[in-house]
Amino acid sequence: MAASQPTPFRKTVETFTAGARTLPQRYFVAPEIFAEEQVKIFGRQWVCVGHQSQLAKAGDYLVQEVAGESLILVRDLQGTVQGFYNVCRHRGTRLCETASGHGAAIQCPYHAWTYALDGRLVGAPHMDDGPRFEKADYSLHAVRLALWEGFIFVSLSDLVPPLEKVFTPLAGKFGHWNLPLLRSARRIEYDVSANWKLVFENYSECYHCPGVHPLLSKVSPSDSAENDLTEGPFLGGFMAIKQGKSLTMSGEACARAVGDIKAEDHARVFYYSIFPNMLLSMHPDYVMVHQLWPQSPARTLIQCDWFFHPDASGSDPSGYNPEDAIEFWDVTNKQDWHVCELSQKGIESRAYQPGPYSPRESVPAAWDREYLRQLG
Amino acid sequence: MAASQPTPFRKTVETFTAGARTLPQRYFVAPEIFAEEQVKIFGRQWVCVGHQSQLAKAGDYLVQEVAGESLILVRDLQGTVQGFYNVCRHRGTRLCETASGHGAAIQCPYHAWTYALDGRLVGAPHMDDGPRFEKADYSLHAVRLALWEGFIFVSLSDLVPPLEKVFTPLAGKFGHWNLPLLRSARRIEYDVSANWKLVFENYSECYHCPGVHPLLSKVSPSDSAENDLTEGPFLGGFMAIKQGKSLTMSGEACARAVGDIKAEDHARVFYYSIFPNMLLSMHPDYVMVHQLWPQSPARTLIQCDWFFHPDASGSDPSGYNPEDAIEFWDVTNKQDWHVCELSQKGIESRAYQPGPYSPRESVPAAWDREYLRQLG
Amino acid sequence: MAASQPTPFRKTVETFTAGARTLPQRYFVAPEIFAEEQVKIFGRQWVCVGHQSQLAKAGDYLVQEVAGESLILVRDLQGTVQGFYNVCRHRGTRLCETASGHGAAIQCPYHAWTYALDGRLVGAPHMDDGPRFEKADYSLHAVRLALWEGFIFVSLSDLVPPLEKVFTPLAGKFGHWNLPLLRSARRIEYDVSANWKLVFENYSECYHCPGVHPLLSKVSPSDSAENDLTEGPFLGGFMAIKQGKSLTMSGEACARAVGDIKAEDHARVFYYSIFPNMLLSMHPDYVMVHQLWPQSPARTLIQCDWFFHPDASGSDPSGYNPEDAIEFWDVTNKQDWHVCELSQKGIESRAYQPGPYSPRESVPAAWDREYLRQLG
Repeated sequence: MAASQPTPFRKTVETFTAGARTLPQRYFVAPEIFAEEQVKIFGRQWVCVGHQSQLAKAGDYLVQEVAGESLILVRDLQGTVQGFYNVCRHRGTRLCETASGHGAAIQCPYHAWTYALDGRLVGAPHMDDGPRFEKADYSLHAVRLALWEGFIFVSLSDLVPPLEKVFTPLAGKFGHWNLPLLRSARRIEYDVSANWKLVFENYSECYHCPGVHPLLSKVSPSDSAENDLTEGPFLGGFMAIKQGKSLTMSGEACARAVGDIKAEDHARVFYYSIFPNMLLSMHPDYVMVHQLWPQSPARTLIQCDWFFHPDASGSDPSGYNPEDAIEFWDVTNKQDWHVCELSQKGIESRAYQPGPYSPRESVPAAWDREYLRQLG
Repeated sequence: MAASQPTPFRKTVETFTAGARTLPQRYFVAPEIFAEEQVKIFGRQWVCVGHQSQLAKAGDYLVQEVAGESLILVRDLQGTVQGFYNVCRHRGTRLCETASGHGAAIQCPYHAWTYALDGRLVGAPHMDDGPRFEKADYSLHAVRLALWEGFIFVSLSDLVPPLEKVFTPLAGKFGHWNLPLLRSARRIEYDVSANWKLVFENYSECYHCPGVHPLLSKVSPSDSAENDLTEGPFLGGFMAIKQGKSLTMSGEACARAVGDIKAEDHARVFYYSIFPNMLLSMHPDYVMVHQLWPQSPARTLIQCDWFFHPDASGSDPSGYNPEDAIEFWDVTNKQDWHVCELSQKGIESRAYQPGPYSPRESVPAAWDREYLRQLG
Repeated sequence: MAASQPTPFRKTVETFTAGARTLPQRYFVAPEIFAEEQVKIFGRQWVCVGHQSQLAKAGDYLVQEVAGESLILVRDLQGTVQGFYNVCRHRGTRLCETASGHGAAIQCPYHAWTYALDGRLVGAPHMDDGPRFEKADYSLHAVRLALWEGFIFVSLSDLVPPLEKVFTPLAGKFGHWNLPLLRSARRIEYDVSANWKLVFENYSECYHCPGVHPLLSKVSPSDSAENDLTEGPFLGGFMAIKQGKSLTMSGEACARAVGDIKAEDHARVFYYSIFPNMLLSMHPDYVMVHQLWPQSPARTLIQCDWFFHPDASGSDPSGYNPEDAIEFWDVTNKQDWHVCELSQKGIESRAYQPGPYSPRESVPAAWDREYLRQLG
């Protein structure tokens, strides 16, 4: 009978003395905080739900889930993008079953109530046989919807200012990248066993890059970050791309430039986190966008799109090989999700205490501060 | 930056002014209400658990779960159908593991305690070696059990009147269909992701038939319903079957008549909902019975049996092809479960509000009223 | 309308008058009691997490989960077995991902913080660039760890006395079996849908053996138990092995004796339960150890190891065929888990009441008493 006699672990008071520290455990595990986030953040703030290019023609629709709510996003006959709850006004039936589609109207599969693309009820069999019934009382329930640089945002609440106002800090900032006109070549969906905040924190620093992303580190030095937005709901800046290289498997540019990129920006990749659910990664030859959808304290769905110039094609002199970029980031994404999942597991331990952010993790620290402000 | 500016959705007060409306959301999603239903309805009322033909001989047994309780239904040596909790009186072990079977006694697989078919403990090894032990103190726990038209009903409570009294409104009503003697040719079990009440509401109207059931609508006009029971725990009536047709895939009768069916009833199908878990669908050539077993607010198991005349056989001049009926209703059942599942999804939305029942949905409205009365 | 009229079941007051009775239902189903057990028993008491032979060389490590906590057990350069929470002190990341392995140090896969095998932080890139940072403040969190007869035990609390003191009743008792030197030939993990206490109660009596274990009963009479420890955290004794037989599929000894077994013990198998998670089954030719890991009120993971003499080999004149023992007990284990699962199901019924233990179940009754004492 003999063994080591270490001092047993004792939980100490959370202190934030010498520099910023990671968030306390409860923010990553407590169902109450998750519920609060769904109400105060995802059920209130403007969240990105797609891009207008996904609704090319009148009648095209998307279905997207936001804070547990299934929403229909549809282009109406006037060309306006509309957003509705996916709920029939008769007996509550879900109207659209597929993630995307096209139709001249929205018809309920149960009793055939029919809505125009702008949400007005236009058909309700036999309802006139009974007590006074006004179709005008039964339009689809609308959601607030606005566009920013071609991306579609919704807010489930009327408590936040108009999108235009909220996005003032970014006004005109990304004009060179031609965002409203780009088109997604591919979407990959990831199911990540980690809290959504770990994904933001991970995106916001490259302190982890040397060990986690050997491929990325080879073409973009991990210590090259220059951030211009360092506090608030929009955070980020650029990192250098090595001369003549691209963030692709081959190291070559994979498509014509997405826009009228400035000379110096041809050797830069811009990373911005847009609170609370969008990661915007602008390369000279493509733009990657992540949408984050928290499912539980320990699970996040992530939709990742790769956008290219609308005219990019195989006959371009500069070439067009979207898979070269997609594979590069698919590999890199999975490396990130893996360490996020390990963090989630470790943070669930009683031994976890907020740890010290390094000087290279000032952006995650700023993101945490903004998050705490938004949670109120 | 430009988009539509619809009025954002605001939850209005639930009103039931001009005509009946669907139930509020909480009845379909709240765990508390589900628990209350299990106690006040499924753990109290008489519920259908099978048919006496399933227990042909002494020693035949069925296992059925009711309100989370596994029950043994067994025919004893006197020919009486008995019902017991599936729990050994020694250390609580589950006694019968299979859904049905046959045995001369009920023996515990753990320590071999043995019970007679009437529930008396008749063997308990070594119990006499210790302190005074009376076998008579350790009979199986019985449940209230009664028969109606050959169907076996149980009640887990002694707070409800005898079955005979409860079923007075139906006394003698279905004599022509020969129900006590029929035999099930087949059972199909369905696992439906919808609240059990949506299944009753669906069964109670044919407003949805034109869109949802093209096959059924062809042989039984959706506007032909004539209901004779329109308030209370038993609801329904008949719908017309087109001249010379049957509710089968082929459109032909698939078996000899189940009983001494009246001439006019040869062109009718009778649909009755029997609160809280039975749907009784009587055709001239077969009887279909659904038993509903709520598993959670959003999940219901459904057992569906197709009963035929006990002497039906392939040598009948009228033919005997049970699959012709089974496939017809299996297709139709699945169409119904699908729209019930869509309703469940939509009703879970914050945008759901009770909607207006049409004049063709008076029976679902009556069913809802009865449900609210039973919940008390 | 006719059926039996049994007296409906009514829950009676739990009584423990004539002899001991099984535990009330709540101990097997209530999440609150499960949580209390995790805190007061599995998160406090000394629990067995492995055997020192699994950490042969410095740098060998095991990962074991205790009360929801992932722990690293590692042999350091001084040869001491150390135990740490599997949590990086930087951002909480889980450090070791595999169940076992070998390394010169413990390095975090996220930002490459590096710890020596004794837990000291020895590398933390860029942390010196910022505010004062002392590596000494960020050692891994240690757990209390001690050895007993070669088995590794940990306690997540400092509220219990040293292992040495707790295990006084067993001091020197098992010297003949050579436990510190044995080696596991095989581990099988079982996922059992039953409360962990049912497994202890099952292990503690052979009243069930005639019906449940025909194979075992043939070589070890079910009524041969002689218990020398009959109250407290350590319970058990021996049962006879028939002359010339072994507890193997073939009935023959499957390996050289594990130690210097006394003559009379060659026809005995010793079974001891070691509260709260170890079952120690010592045969002349091998030692079987179960570790129990409760996952929920109705689920328990069980790790079962078969240990043999370190020098046992195929060239032994007595032979070496570990599978002969492993298969014997794998069959027997599964028979036990099955009846435990049936008990769990039955006990979850509202009809379950504590039942009378037989005179042959005095050890389970003693185990229950100890459990209630430990729960406090």
